[in-house]
Amino acid sequence: MIKRPLARTPFLFTAAALLGTSTIAFSAIAASPDPATLREAALQDDTAWDILEGITTEVGQRLAATPAEARAREWAVAELKRQGFANVHVETFTMPVWQRGEETAEIVAPFPQKLAVAALGNSSGTPAGGLTAEVAAFDGLDALVKAPASAVAGKIVFVNHHMAAQQDGGSYGEIGAIRRTGPSIASQKGALAIVIRSIGTDHHRVPHTGVQTWVNGAKAIPAAALSVPDAEQLARVLERGKPVTLHLSIGAGMAGTGTSGNVIAEVPGRDPKAGIVLVGGHLDSWDLATGTIDDASGLAIVTAAAKRIMAAGKPRRTIRIVWFGAEEPGGFGGDAYAKAHAGEKHVLVGESDSGADRVWKVDFTAADPKAPLADRIALALAPLGITRGSARAHGGTDVGPIAQVTGAPVIDLHQDATRYFDIHHTADDTLDKVDPAQLRQNVAAWTAMLAIAAEDAEQLAPVAPAPER
Amino acid sequence: MIKRPLARTPFLFTAAALLGTSTIAFSAIAASPDPATLREAALQDDTAWDILEGITTEVGQRLAATPAEARAREWAVAELKRQGFANVHVETFTMPVWQRGEETAEIVAPFPQKLAVAALGNSSGTPAGGLTAEVAAFDGLDALVKAPASAVAGKIVFVNHHMAAQQDGGSYGEIGAIRRTGPSIASQKGALAIVIRSIGTDHHRVPHTGVQTWVNGAKAIPAAALSVPDAEQLARVLERGKPVTLHLSIGAGMAGTGTSGNVIAEVPGRDPKAGIVLVGGHLDSWDLATGTIDDASGLAIVTAAAKRIMAAGKPRRTIRIVWFGAEEPGGFGGDAYAKAHAGEKHVLVGESDSGADRVWKVDFTAADPKAPLADRIALALAPLGITRGSARAHGGTDVGPIAQVTGAPVIDLHQDATRYFDIHHTADDTLDKVDPAQLRQNVAAWTAMLAIAAEDAEQLAPVAPAPER
Repeated sequence: MIKRPLARTPFLFTAAALLGTSTIAFSAIAASPDPATLREAALQDDTAWDILEGITTEVGQRLAATPAEARAREWAVAELKRQGFANVHVETFTMPVWQRGEETAEIVAPFPQKLAVAALGNSSGTPAGGLTAEVAAFDGLDALVKAPASAVAGKIVFVNHHMAAQQDGGSYGEIGAIRRTGPSIASQKGALAIVIRSIGTDHHRVPHTGVQTWVNGAKAIPAAALSVPDAEQLARVLERGKPVTLHLSIGAGMAGTGTSGNVIAEVPGRDPKAGIVLVGGHLDSWDLATGTIDDASGLAIVTAAAKRIMAAGKPRRTIRIVWFGAEEPGGFGGDAYAKAHAGEKHVLVGESDSGADRVWKVDFTAADPKAPLADRIALALAPLGITRGSARAHGGTDVGPIAQVTGAPVIDLHQDATRYFDIHHTADDTLDKVDPAQLRQNVAAWTAMLAIAAEDAEQLAPVAPAPER
Repeated sequence: MIKRPLARTPFLFTAAALLGTSTIAFSAIAASPDPATLREAALQDDTAWDILEGITTEVGQRLAATPAEARAREWAVAELKRQGFANVHVETFTMPVWQRGEETAEIVAPFPQKLAVAALGNSSGTPAGGLTAEVAAFDGLDALVKAPASAVAGKIVFVNHHMAAQQDGGSYGEIGAIRRTGPSIASQKGALAIVIRSIGTDHHRVPHTGVQTWVNGAKAIPAAALSVPDAEQLARVLERGKPVTLHLSIGAGMAGTGTSGNVIAEVPGRDPKAGIVLVGGHLDSWDLATGTIDDASGLAIVTAAAKRIMAAGKPRRTIRIVWFGAEEPGGFGGDAYAKAHAGEKHVLVGESDSGADRVWKVDFTAADPKAPLADRIALALAPLGITRGSARAHGGTDVGPIAQVTGAPVIDLHQDATRYFDIHHTADDTLDKVDPAQLRQNVAAWTAMLAIAAEDAEQLAPVAPAPER
């Protein structure tokens, strides 16, 4: 909605020039860059916008393990080298590929009309010509769970819900279970197909896709999401009390094995024994849009922050940036990274993967989350309007696995998710949704955090590693 | 965005009961219903919502001269009879039919990606398999007009613009010329096809369709709109300075002759010589959505208002409600009505066709727009937050023709159009966009107007009729 200002502030160039000079000074004396100064300068930095605009314009959608994601990796390597990072390389892995096809849905009776629909990840296709069946409707996942198979078998299941926006995005956890597990439950009860109300909080005709996995031996069936207005329309039609028949045509399906990969770059540290601060986001996106808030913005934020630290002088610890591949279909990139790098010393890990709106809260996971280092980080974030939470940081799909296997401390810089699920996984995830000022606030937060975490002599104590997943 | 409150106010039922009693009293004494009382009661009336919810749910899209519009006429006749109106009937007419087909657009080079596209009315189709050509881009209509044919011939024209929301919807007039005349100009210069930035003010992946007509002998070519985010994306790609190639596949085209019709109902007046107050909206919609704000809401508003007058006692003048057919493809219903009813005495005409947001301004066209009757109407509207404008009312596509041929005075109850062109002609024109409170304010405004215009002994003086179109 908010457009980038036409003119950039001249301060950007001034700051860059000053920092250029400072680089030499810092390198010479190995002094800690001042986090407050770096934070304030980052508020004027458009590097994140330029990365975001670049990848979303020049690559577009980046569905995992497809040629589009491969083009994104090429773009990423070139960009990270151009920005001056060290050790830029790709670590590939193979995985099953799912692809979308043509997809349509319509009410056949009692009131014929088309509905906007999008298949969910790992959905099977319908038979050629589609399938037509009566709708069995459920308000929420519990109702589907409790339904006897006789109420579901041979029908198209429809699951409605009442998700509302929350700043911490918490409703996605509870309501999102409809998408994650609803299809398997419907399949096991003999449903021909399932359509869910999109896991989203908007009112636009843009269905929200997302991954679901077939569990407990459930047979793959067509599984799709209706846009929120279409789900509301179907609910109104159902309220008339007459049997409702849907026709569904879904061309999606599995397409063999493909290659994905993590793109890695570093700001090398002064002390090889001081360990690695890992920051990341994910390079892949869903195929319906340009994956701007999910998650090109995350890549852009952490990369711009690391660049500011690099420009300010060599930090004590290595900062490793990972643009993870194949997050959306199930965290393949995070798992591959954890497997490949479990033996390395990660002193702190964090990812940015909740859009581009401002950071409002910071949480830590460490043996002592009240350590002075955590206090210093929280203090440096406070001028950005960020307060300290009381939850255990989890780090998300990308850095979660490495944290789990190594016990590495985790930091969560929580972004305001109030409007995130308006856009998440829809055709609407495009550049116009990003507010450049909030994007810069994110860069400032990650810059301040890195200025301390990569430089401070103290480090957070690791927690006990969990068994490898 | 705004949902209807779950519980209706009990006042509705109280008011209806009271008015039931009043009907007898008014009929007996032929007294003027008090406009203020009727206006305030209308603010509690959900009749408009029920009509709106009914037709958009039970019929859905209603493209002109198609079976869907015919179903809508059946629905309309049943509903208007159920509401108790007199002389409910359909006046049919024939017209050319245009229909949409499959439609896709994609950037082939330099950055391959799909774009969201919708054909414009009267667009031709592309050859089977689509067409691929270089883009010739223009910022605004003037740039296209001034371009030499050599810059356009053999290419796909893209016209960008910078439309912003305005309360009076005025930007649609100027910027909308790109849609109305751009295709003919491009065709005459030898373009293979044209894609325009949607004539809209939103940032969603829902292109805005709308009619355009081939003029000055221009050959029909594929003509389509990109969604605003896609047009911005294409502009960013073009800014890179490399040649940009598009592939366009449009299945639209003309489909012979079909039947449309106007659905007419009346509140008969006490005095057959006192003339007709005509109020209307249009029954047809574009095919991409359920035509909620364009224009089921208009039908619902004027019908609910007429019903309130009917329930309050027989007015002096006949109130005629017309649900016009085939407005979108070029005002066929308005023209047919004017032709059939030019000989009848229309004392005031008005239509509601700018959504469902609140009325903010009233304008008149009459020989003496400052007549006491106009003052009384404006005074009755003032408590609803409506002020008096200084423009000449035009009445729109539906009632414009009858006003033109008869010289009938026109009233415009202008709706707030600030968010109208976010939704107009897109897949997003669905029920969730309507705010029930603002819908009721519209009903109250039309009720107050009708209470005076259909009852007052005075009438506005007609203007000189224009020659028939």
